[in-house]
Amino acid sequence: MTSDQNSNLSLFFEPRSIAVFGSMREPLGEAITAMRNMRDFGFQGRLYPISRSSAEVLGTRTYPTVDAVNEPIDLALVITPPPTVLPIIEQCGRKRIRAVIIATEGFAETGPDGAGLQRQLVETAHGFGMRLLGPNTLGVLNTAHGLVTDPYPIGKNKPRAGGVSYCAQTGFLTFGVHPIKDLGQPISKICDFGNKCDVNEVDILPYLADDPSTDVICMHLEDIRDGQRFGQVAKEVVARKPVLVLKPGRTEAGAKAASSHTGSLAGDDVIYENALKQAGVIRLRTWREYWDIPKALSLQPLAKGNRVAIITATGGAGVMLTDAAAEAGLIPATFTPATRTHLHTLSPRWGSNPVDVGPQMSLRDNPFAVYSEVVPVVLSDPNVDCLAVVCHFGSPIVKVLTELAPTIAKISKPVTVFGYGIDLADMQESGRNIEALGLPVYLDLETAVKALGVGAAYSQIRARLGVDGR
Amino acid sequence: MTSDQNSNLSLFFEPRSIAVFGSMREPLGEAITAMRNMRDFGFQGRLYPISRSSAEVLGTRTYPTVDAVNEPIDLALVITPPPTVLPIIEQCGRKRIRAVIIATEGFAETGPDGAGLQRQLVETAHGFGMRLLGPNTLGVLNTAHGLVTDPYPIGKNKPRAGGVSYCAQTGFLTFGVHPIKDLGQPISKICDFGNKCDVNEVDILPYLADDPSTDVICMHLEDIRDGQRFGQVAKEVVARKPVLVLKPGRTEAGAKAASSHTGSLAGDDVIYENALKQAGVIRLRTWREYWDIPKALSLQPLAKGNRVAIITATGGAGVMLTDAAAEAGLIPATFTPATRTHLHTLSPRWGSNPVDVGPQMSLRDNPFAVYSEVVPVVLSDPNVDCLAVVCHFGSPIVKVLTELAPTIAKISKPVTVFGYGIDLADMQESGRNIEALGLPVYLDLETAVKALGVGAAYSQIRARLGVDGR
Repeated sequence: MTSDQNSNLSLFFEPRSIAVFGSMREPLGEAITAMRNMRDFGFQGRLYPISRSSAEVLGTRTYPTVDAVNEPIDLALVITPPPTVLPIIEQCGRKRIRAVIIATEGFAETGPDGAGLQRQLVETAHGFGMRLLGPNTLGVLNTAHGLVTDPYPIGKNKPRAGGVSYCAQTGFLTFGVHPIKDLGQPISKICDFGNKCDVNEVDILPYLADDPSTDVICMHLEDIRDGQRFGQVAKEVVARKPVLVLKPGRTEAGAKAASSHTGSLAGDDVIYENALKQAGVIRLRTWREYWDIPKALSLQPLAKGNRVAIITATGGAGVMLTDAAAEAGLIPATFTPATRTHLHTLSPRWGSNPVDVGPQMSLRDNPFAVYSEVVPVVLSDPNVDCLAVVCHFGSPIVKVLTELAPTIAKISKPVTVFGYGIDLADMQESGRNIEALGLPVYLDLETAVKALGVGAAYSQIRARLGVDGR
Repeated sequence: MTSDQNSNLSLFFEPRSIAVFGSMREPLGEAITAMRNMRDFGFQGRLYPISRSSAEVLGTRTYPTVDAVNEPIDLALVITPPPTVLPIIEQCGRKRIRAVIIATEGFAETGPDGAGLQRQLVETAHGFGMRLLGPNTLGVLNTAHGLVTDPYPIGKNKPRAGGVSYCAQTGFLTFGVHPIKDLGQPISKICDFGNKCDVNEVDILPYLADDPSTDVICMHLEDIRDGQRFGQVAKEVVARKPVLVLKPGRTEAGAKAASSHTGSLAGDDVIYENALKQAGVIRLRTWREYWDIPKALSLQPLAKGNRVAIITATGGAGVMLTDAAAEAGLIPATFTPATRTHLHTLSPRWGSNPVDVGPQMSLRDNPFAVYSEVVPVVLSDPNVDCLAVVCHFGSPIVKVLTELAPTIAKISKPVTVFGYGIDLADMQESGRNIEALGLPVYLDLETAVKALGVGAAYSQIRARLGVDGR
């Protein structure tokens, strides 16, 4: 990756100006929808809608061709029928546009004819020194710039700004079809590779490694085009930031489905497994892990080791979390004698791990205050590297955790919170409030400790690479 | 299990009258809270609050002692301090009450003294021919009778009546701390074993097997008190209804935590694994599987085999589901030539499995109508045993599935639905509406096919036992 290429990549994520090609027809024309999404997200750059049919779109002046625009243009977004795309690429090339997102469907994913047309796009683009993202993509999102190129209406789904950047080989794992706003996901950038005709995982890794607003990189890859190069690049990036990968095709049936989805050779999973491990990339297994684990690494500090403590208001959950923690590579922390003594003075039944605060809660006037007593004691224990807290979600625990959050942050060890309750809306509201404190929230039991396990695994990888803690 | 014991069990779940012992203090006295929960759930039987301090509780006359009640009493609910429980058991015994739920905490779970007190309770109860549930339990729930004994306020959490019965060795996996109403869980009965001093898994299995409103039995067991007897009983029950078990202690750390939680010997997991398999019991692994898989077996017919079809609006999800299906013991269905031809006439890109309807949707005026075309063709294919449908949740798909539901029911093969979207509240609302059609809904990708896999596994178990389809 030369710095020139890297600056090309920044045109995709931080464009100051965008030419938009496609249907401006109300209400759901793809181009006008993308423009409306950007307006809703608060895009600060200039938009140049290219249209001969109307003088103005959403209050913005249109241009009959891109040549008619007198200012320089950083990025083009193309959502026009397949046969029109190549001529548009040529126009953009002449206008010295260096980055083009082709949202249009109907290329390599449809068969040999589409693949041929797609190859032409790439050859033409490279002749102009232009990079292409897609085709068959929802494009990109950048919370810091209010940028989003989705041709479907998603204006209400602007996530909060945060440190996780996602790249996926399907719109399904991007901003298009996940309630990233309602779930409070802390997002920096999202990219849908689409058919990955040009810009791919090897290009984007160094860009995200250099990006100051990205803490954690999470990718969905159905194939890896150049395994050796990916391994080299990933290894360098992993020394700086965690790289998590969801790679389907674990099973023979899945690999076959992947190959018919993106027309790519999914390859032998064992080879991928070893190559990813070799590069220090951590592999995720499920849809839920993909969405819910990266945020823990972004919001919380890194663990120094893999010894986990569990504080729970229900003994049954403590047992299940202990199982899940062991399966995630963690071991139960053995508290120091000082911690055991301290806990014992707070309640004669406390001292071992997990700490079941439930029985004490039913004796107190202010049941949730027990968390204020126990969390600092346990988290400060030198034998504890990370902590999972289990609690009933509702306003009382939000209040307690709001008071505790500065203490937790000061101790500087990773904490996750698993919440339960009987009122779903109330639980989700509490979850958002707690996560806004910087504490990653889980409404799924096993994922709460799996996230700690992935954090501990990344610490071990850094140690192996001889890199100090973040 | 004699029929006499079985009728004792029915006193716990179908009591016509209940004596309630415990604090009647407003607002949160445990006994008055339990009574209020029952009023909110619509309990039809008679309640006899036992209290000397007030003449009336929630409009119901109180009695100073249980002897003062002149009518027969089926069940006693005891939520009083530990030292008072034994004398109450004796009073209940003299009143010929044959079933007592001891909600009170502070027995075997607190150590040797508590364990001794607990043994006394059992000996006394058995002397009267009385069965005990608990102590340290939230008790029971029965949707058909409006029965719920929880001493914490959960009046708003009454689930809809359905065919799944749950029993757990922790309140955490019962009605107390899960939004079973908001999630639309179809519930028949729920039981919290608590410390399991008397009534246990071996007692309850035959009762639920005989219960006409229970289709599926799902249990959380931290230990199994009499493995051999459990195996015999479970095997008989499995021939009639599926029995699913979440058994923590899979890891050494988890087993140790279980033993300190319930004071029981968790034992070697391999032995449990084999014993459960031998009995035809299907083992669940996670919190989410426990809550989300049984409903699919209750709402849908049994599959005749393990060949799964996938219809998806996003190719990326199709690949991930194929992986998850293979890991759940399913194999991708190969459509018959007739089906392939039929699909091909609907769209030239259709014919193989998974069927990606996404590209067709973007060409249609009514995108969601493609499901009406494709679902019946695929589900009717003789090579297809079960089907997972992936769709964007919102009112359009609810409308289509409402129209399709009778056709799906007629074809009589199991279907699950995985839904995605960008508006969480909207997705949950759509999910409830679709599940009300009898189609089990998942907002978690892998669980949607794992549920089909568990159904197929139960079919295979029935075949092995020589039992016909349900």
